Amino acid sequence: MNYHLNQIPDRTTKPRQKGLTMVMDKGLSLRQVEDFLETGADYTDIVKLGWATSYVTPNLKEKLALYKSAGIPVYFGGTLFEAFYIRGQFDDYRRILDEFGMEYAEVSDGSIEMESDIKCELIRTLATQVTVLSEVGSKDEAKIIPPYKWIKLMRMELEAGAWKVIGEAREGGNVGLFRSSGEVRQGLVEEILTEIPEEKIIWEAPQKSQQVWFVKLVGANVNVGNIAPQEVVSLETIRLGLRGDTFDHFLTK
Amino acid sequence: MNYHLNQIPDRTTKPRQKGLTMVMDKGLSLRQVEDFLETGADYTDIVKLGWATSYVTPNLKEKLALYKSAGIPVYFGGTLFEAFYIRGQFDDYRRILDEFGMEYAEVSDGSIEMESDIKCELIRTLATQVTVLSEVGSKDEAKIIPPYKWIKLMRMELEAGAWKVIGEAREGGNVGLFRSSGEVRQGLVEEILTEIPEEKIIWEAPQKSQQVWFVKLVGANVNVGNIAPQEVVSLETIRLGLRGDTFDHFLTK
Amino acid sequence: MNYHLNQIPDRTTKPRQKGLTMVMDKGLSLRQVEDFLETGADYTDIVKLGWATSYVTPNLKEKLALYKSAGIPVYFGGTLFEAFYIRGQFDDYRRILDEFGMEYAEVSDGSIEMESDIKCELIRTLATQVTVLSEVGSKDEAKIIPPYKWIKLMRMELEAGAWKVIGEAREGGNVGLFRSSGEVRQGLVEEILTEIPEEKIIWEAPQKSQQVWFVKLVGANVNVGNIAPQEVVSLETIRLGLRGDTFDHFLTK
Repeated sequence: MNYHLNQIPDRTTKPRQKGLTMVMDKGLSLRQVEDFLETGADYTDIVKLGWATSYVTPNLKEKLALYKSAGIPVYFGGTLFEAFYIRGQFDDYRRILDEFGMEYAEVSDGSIEMESDIKCELIRTLATQVTVLSEVGSKDEAKIIPPYKWIKLMRMELEAGAWKVIGEAREGGNVGLFRSSGEVRQGLVEEILTEIPEEKIIWEAPQKSQQVWFVKLVGANVNVGNIAPQEVVSLETIRLGLRGDTFDHFLTK
Repeated sequence: MNYHLNQIPDRTTKPRQKGLTMVMDKGLSLRQVEDFLETGADYTDIVKLGWATSYVTPNLKEKLALYKSAGIPVYFGGTLFEAFYIRGQFDDYRRILDEFGMEYAEVSDGSIEMESDIKCELIRTLATQVTVLSEVGSKDEAKIIPPYKWIKLMRMELEAGAWKVIGEAREGGNVGLFRSSGEVRQGLVEEILTEIPEEKIIWEAPQKSQQVWFVKLVGANVNVGNIAPQEVVSLETIRLGLRGDTFDHFLTK
Repeated sequence: MNYHLNQIPDRTTKPRQKGLTMVMDKGLSLRQVEDFLETGADYTDIVKLGWATSYVTPNLKEKLALYKSAGIPVYFGGTLFEAFYIRGQFDDYRRILDEFGMEYAEVSDGSIEMESDIKCELIRTLATQVTVLSEVGSKDEAKIIPPYKWIKLMRMELEAGAWKVIGEAREGGNVGLFRSSGEVRQGLVEEILTEIPEEKIIWEAPQKSQQVWFVKLVGANVNVGNIAPQEVVSLETIRLGLRGDTFDHFLTK
């Protein structure tokens, strides 16, 4: 840090198993990746290439190499997995993971219907090849999953071999964990945390108010995801009680 | 594309007469233009220098040269045309178009009152000098233009020599084609499309939900505009059914 | 300017005492600073490193040098002052200002309780070391300060040695001067302006609608702050009546 302040909460350092920040890259240029890493590299644990943006961005191989040289793992968004799966191209997906040297992959069912047994089978298969993140929750506003089912699904997917489970939100932050207003489903999150260890979950929290909410509930070292590259510095100050929103939270009275 | 997926809708390629993406540059630096073009050049058909930003940005000549070298046409926002016109400086505007080597220009009346005969006369005049885009619709929330009049104006302006007509929205996407909530005026758009060929219209659709709406209504190759540079990759995935919002749209059941 | 338009309001030039634009840098990389300055340097009078972002950004010294070479003063956000003060580290803060060669500092009480006498004393102390900006208004939505008190505080703080007083908003623009909807507290602003000279106040106005509102009320040369780097060009066009929102405002009828 650039100077010393007392009473700053302990923050985990890399490589983190807890206190992870997952950043979403939705089509950055190589230079924009470098710019983001200049300030954000120490605070970024893993990068997702949002949904299927990797299909259309012409700089994919160079970008993967750039993140690799910075020591930051990268994975393709779950929507890409779903796009292959729904087309009966799961084997192609596995080949592509190898072709691009991917070490992580996401399994999700945000845009498709998938039985949980099948999802767990796919997790098991992919876990022989890469480190798997699995995502629970739908992108469909109309599909409300009750808390007991979130817990059951998260547990099954972790047992099937997922490294972390992700609590689904959308880039805009308005489904899954969140009401259409962007407000967090508080009871849902609290109930999940009674059953699943906090370090096994990455909460998608693209909006500042959501990041604040999770830091207040879980602490400085909550795992959060879908963070925009230009918001990583802000998130770090929120974690440390150095932005207005969490200013009081870590101070002893 | 970086890998093969089945059942991806056909997408037109450059030079496109249909499936155009018009991007709004509201003051990018030269390096930011290069960054945007690294991922967006193949998907960007024309760039607008938003409203009168070209008046205050010091890098104008260099920027025009940069877009030119990438083969992407550029035009000044319609508000600049209106700023000259309302000051009785239309002839100055014509000179400036030549001075900066512009090959496209927009004629609009979003912030001023202008009889349609006069507007068509100006389109005719400018069309002898450049390729003209004309814009229909007011920036004033209180001015509701009924569908039959949108159609009449679009037809007149195309007949006067406009290459494309633009359906007005604002950068924030809340007037003209849209309700103050950002919601599309669906009946208006559908009625326009019964009378004016879709390839002649560029729909301003700065918000993701609006882009999704137009892709679902018109198809992957709808012409849309006022796209932010950093959203061009996202738009391309929406066109191809590779973002959650249009994921099902192009899949055969 | 790139070309000549009649009836453009007079705009002050650097070094400005009036018509100031204060920009918030919330963690830019060095190259992003250069990009912002390419178009924004002439229109940016002072830069704030937002809240305590300077604690976590690794490029702090280089960034300060970069702004210095562009002739643009920089100061740490008021939340950082408060973070030091609340920890009993005010003397450390003074040392750090010297260590980093800061020539400006902000005194605020947006996130803490502070008697106005103490605040004025701190302003007096810091004013012997740097040029002080002091901020009035709380970040807490529940704390409504009545107009007479805003005026009294602003006057006291200017008398204590503040160069300018800042009317508080948050980055998102929804407390202090603004209702939770983002709407300006019009009566409050008008009453303040009857008592405090407009050139002594910097109004935080991060949202476009707020910038438009202040330009219409005070004029092209209103002091505004918390402007995002990528919005400086837009703000300049709003000041000059060259964006739709203020298009009519400076035209003689």
